[in-house]
Amino acid sequence: MTLLVESSGLPADVYSAKCPTRQVLDHIAGKWTVLIVDALLQQGTMRYTDLSRRIEGVSQKMLTQTLRSLESDGFITRTMHPTIPPRVDYDLTPLGRSLAEPITALRRWTEEHINDIERARNAQAS
Amino acid sequence: MTLLVESSGLPADVYSAKCPTRQVLDHIAGKWTVLIVDALLQQGTMRYTDLSRRIEGVSQKMLTQTLRSLESDGFITRTMHPTIPPRVDYDLTPLGRSLAEPITALRRWTEEHINDIERARNAQAS
Repeated sequence: MTLLVESSGLPADVYSAKCPTRQVLDHIAGKWTVLIVDALLQQGTMRYTDLSRRIEGVSQKMLTQTLRSLESDGFITRTMHPTIPPRVDYDLTPLGRSLAEPITALRRWTEEHINDIERARNAQAS
Repeated sequence: MTLLVESSGLPADVYSAKCPTRQVLDHIAGKWTVLIVDALLQQGTMRYTDLSRRIEGVSQKMLTQTLRSLESDGFITRTMHPTIPPRVDYDLTPLGRSLAEPITALRRWTEEHINDIERARNAQAS
């Protein structure tokens, strides 16, 4: 069954450069998105500093940018608590939680196949 | 069960910046990888020109770069036929075909949830 994109009235098709699904695929198929969503799935509500510590090597710029894009796509909520200093919590929305299956599958696949990939690389190099 | 990365002797952990799984996640979690692998899963062997036509909007530079990275990770094979002009065929390896589950899940999720995402965006804008 082909799904229709309501805003355009056209079938959803990630192969089409102008289909809104292409931009969404770009947002969700990124290593930072995978790691942020996976961390929130595992740990529930997290603060900005929790995320930056959990996801080794992410720059402040990339983390902030990815969180904003996830918020504007409706995948996460950002809650500011009026404490001193202010506390900002991130959590998945139901839409964000529905990403669990593909995102967890990507992370697991990577961890399960790393040795096959390293063997393939070594075979080419020798 | 935690899997060990043979080359480092350390547990596979995509959250660790130095774990080889992080680089692999970066390669497979990209929109061009998703589209190339998905196209090859659907259509079998494809030529360079088939891929560039199927995946609207991909630049020659990005297509070439992504194909090279997929080849060096052992996901696809590149076969050059000594015809005039030379014909270059791309196909998935068994390792590349094992990516079917997470990659197809990502594409499908995107197509199935595009209307929810557009609604979330509109709700924020209004």
